[in-house]
Amino acid sequence: MFMKTFIKDLPRFAGQEARISGWLYNKRSSGPIMFLELRDGTGWIQGVVVKKDVSDEIWDEIVKSTQESSVEVAGKVEKHPKKENVFEMQIADFKIIQLAVDYPIAKKEHGPDFLLDHRHLWLRSQKQWAILKIRDAIITAINEYLHQEGFIKVDSPIFTPNACEGTTTLFSVPYFDLGSAYLSQSGQLYLEAAIGSVGRCYDFGPVFRAEKSKTKRHLTEFWMMDAEAAFVEHEENLKLQEGMVRHIIRHCLKSCSMELTILERDTEKLKKADAPFLRLSYDEAIKKLNELGSDIKYGEDLGNDDEGLLTQGSDAPVFIEKWPKNIKPFYMKRDPQNSSMVLNDDLIATDGGGEIIGGSQREENAAELEKRIEEEGMNKDDYEWYLDTRRYGGAPHSGFGIGLERAVRWICGVEHIRECIPFPRTIGRLKP
Amino acid sequence: MFMKTFIKDLPRFAGQEARISGWLYNKRSSGPIMFLELRDGTGWIQGVVVKKDVSDEIWDEIVKSTQESSVEVAGKVEKHPKKENVFEMQIADFKIIQLAVDYPIAKKEHGPDFLLDHRHLWLRSQKQWAILKIRDAIITAINEYLHQEGFIKVDSPIFTPNACEGTTTLFSVPYFDLGSAYLSQSGQLYLEAAIGSVGRCYDFGPVFRAEKSKTKRHLTEFWMMDAEAAFVEHEENLKLQEGMVRHIIRHCLKSCSMELTILERDTEKLKKADAPFLRLSYDEAIKKLNELGSDIKYGEDLGNDDEGLLTQGSDAPVFIEKWPKNIKPFYMKRDPQNSSMVLNDDLIATDGGGEIIGGSQREENAAELEKRIEEEGMNKDDYEWYLDTRRYGGAPHSGFGIGLERAVRWICGVEHIRECIPFPRTIGRLKP
Repeated sequence: MFMKTFIKDLPRFAGQEARISGWLYNKRSSGPIMFLELRDGTGWIQGVVVKKDVSDEIWDEIVKSTQESSVEVAGKVEKHPKKENVFEMQIADFKIIQLAVDYPIAKKEHGPDFLLDHRHLWLRSQKQWAILKIRDAIITAINEYLHQEGFIKVDSPIFTPNACEGTTTLFSVPYFDLGSAYLSQSGQLYLEAAIGSVGRCYDFGPVFRAEKSKTKRHLTEFWMMDAEAAFVEHEENLKLQEGMVRHIIRHCLKSCSMELTILERDTEKLKKADAPFLRLSYDEAIKKLNELGSDIKYGEDLGNDDEGLLTQGSDAPVFIEKWPKNIKPFYMKRDPQNSSMVLNDDLIATDGGGEIIGGSQREENAAELEKRIEEEGMNKDDYEWYLDTRRYGGAPHSGFGIGLERAVRWICGVEHIRECIPFPRTIGRLKP
Repeated sequence: MFMKTFIKDLPRFAGQEARISGWLYNKRSSGPIMFLELRDGTGWIQGVVVKKDVSDEIWDEIVKSTQESSVEVAGKVEKHPKKENVFEMQIADFKIIQLAVDYPIAKKEHGPDFLLDHRHLWLRSQKQWAILKIRDAIITAINEYLHQEGFIKVDSPIFTPNACEGTTTLFSVPYFDLGSAYLSQSGQLYLEAAIGSVGRCYDFGPVFRAEKSKTKRHLTEFWMMDAEAAFVEHEENLKLQEGMVRHIIRHCLKSCSMELTILERDTEKLKKADAPFLRLSYDEAIKKLNELGSDIKYGEDLGNDDEGLLTQGSDAPVFIEKWPKNIKPFYMKRDPQNSSMVLNDDLIATDGGGEIIGGSQREENAAELEKRIEEEGMNKDDYEWYLDTRRYGGAPHSGFGIGLERAVRWICGVEHIRECIPFPRTIGRLKP
């Protein structure tokens, strides 16, 4: 009797007694009846207590309890009289572990700065809890899918001696007697070396951009998953990306239905996104955008509005493939059918999710790659090790990277990316 | 016919024809017969080719092929005539994708600096491949076990405004107009906040120590998994740690038998380590060490030799629990039965693996914690947010951290930790 369990497991105790430890989220009374909203990290349940059914000590303890006090609660689990699949607890025992006095985040509205200053507490709100849970589900789905497809995790280093893409947005760190180390912006080059050992691999870790832009889609520290596969060309690369994103959707729909409900995410739209992804070439995309009224010019990158226009009317995400080589990095392989374009793709999510994946087939020819490094004015010495991967057993290969917070933002349907990472870091924020 | 597949799946093709893409690892000839050792990242197979059975073009291509050339090979899969569960391929077709000329890592012995300078290629050696595979298996086992136990992944930040333990070994980074950011040494304090939302959580990412020590067990950048759980006390904390480590052992034995064989790891010893872990209090450990001839004094930390002595004769890892408070961090909870000790543990692995886990119950009382912060001379303002986690719904809680490379080193039975991470970073090494 009063077996200790978690809220998520309470349905199994229907008709029986159980005990949980957690926090009081909310409390309201209706004369001699009190309704407690309880949470323990695994879920939420309503506790009901009738004054005459409990001792005065227990009733007083409940009256005394405050928002966010930690509590231990026991009672009989029962089906909700009206709601399907909802359970509640008839409270028989109640103990305050620690009484929270004047919890700073009241039920009223707070400004974003106040909430970010109290991120360590704000995470407890129902919405933030749901986002954390979905973030975890997306991580799990990615690990699962990639292992199914034969990828293993190979962690790339954070401290790097040179930049992968550009240098203006790099964080630099004094590194013993070796000068400066730069914080990684992508592990791709390292993964291209590691596929020579394990064939298919991925990393999944924090990356850093010292970008001075303040937008709803940028963080200075965020999580990227980069995958790389030997003997995979452009077509198969797109299939892997599509497979992964559809796996993420299915996994979240299956394991996070409560969380998606809390976030008021339209799950019908997510279900529909689990369909073959559309494809447009960059050329087609620009033409379509101009027709739809965008003033984008050929050779330019897509803006946020453009991304929105391109997915309008599409249930599933849209690949934009084969971009002009001039606006893409040196390592992308030229399209053999049109050498001014590269065999790459950006994947644009539905519902305003924007770009969530970028990928490409890589140039596997050492001489060609060397030429490009020179053309870009990069220091060839820094890339000798990278060129080695083509000199010794080079082979066609491709890869892609997904921004975790971008994916979380899309699946959750939240507006601001700062809510998609537990402790956001931006140009103006380093705390808590 | 000649269906494309991976080497790991070739046993399913026994008696049939298949095609693989990979690299030539080694080649030897015996007159008109050639034996090729082939690898593709998923495994290794011997290819056999008889001159009279193939065209001159194919034979010439095989003769021309060199170590680490990328190749496409097809032929009939057959059971090895003598070895159980071993298969080989009767080569019918052979094509060089890219001919490797003068691969730098010859079959002869190389010094560690040469190998580390060529880490991007060294990873292809059989031993390094096996370590990468086992590292991935350990990561998977950790993710799996923690999710089974109700933990979710909550990534803690890398950029932090203040230090968790000490400041002398912190890397500092200029951070826009906010002064310096420090690279995280542990996400623990952040996880202690996040359990207020999700109950049980963990992070798993890179951490950084600007330590000037050059040992076989230290890296400046390494991977840590920190777990934290609300309503979990010392005893249950130890159970979770033991459960996780035993899950790691079982998972590796099950999924990495080939890799462990390559590394010549004594798997019987690993099997035996999957047994209830021994426990010694710090007091008992010191007494035992002194009896065994160590000159360690009461109140000192364990040295490498001490760790070796304490696991001598033990098949399973050993917990050393309840250490003097003076040599442990401020956040550890005092033992109610002896307030000069804390409710913590170090887990010492067998076979010279050394300490792989450190954990403790945390002090949950805000006033007590505040006092300690003052006693340690730390800046209280920096910890206001952390104290909030106790002021609003504080509860008993515990956590632990496992060093990934330490675990890899132990399971693989390798000597040097620099082989346990794909691209090691040490005081003297930032490349490749």
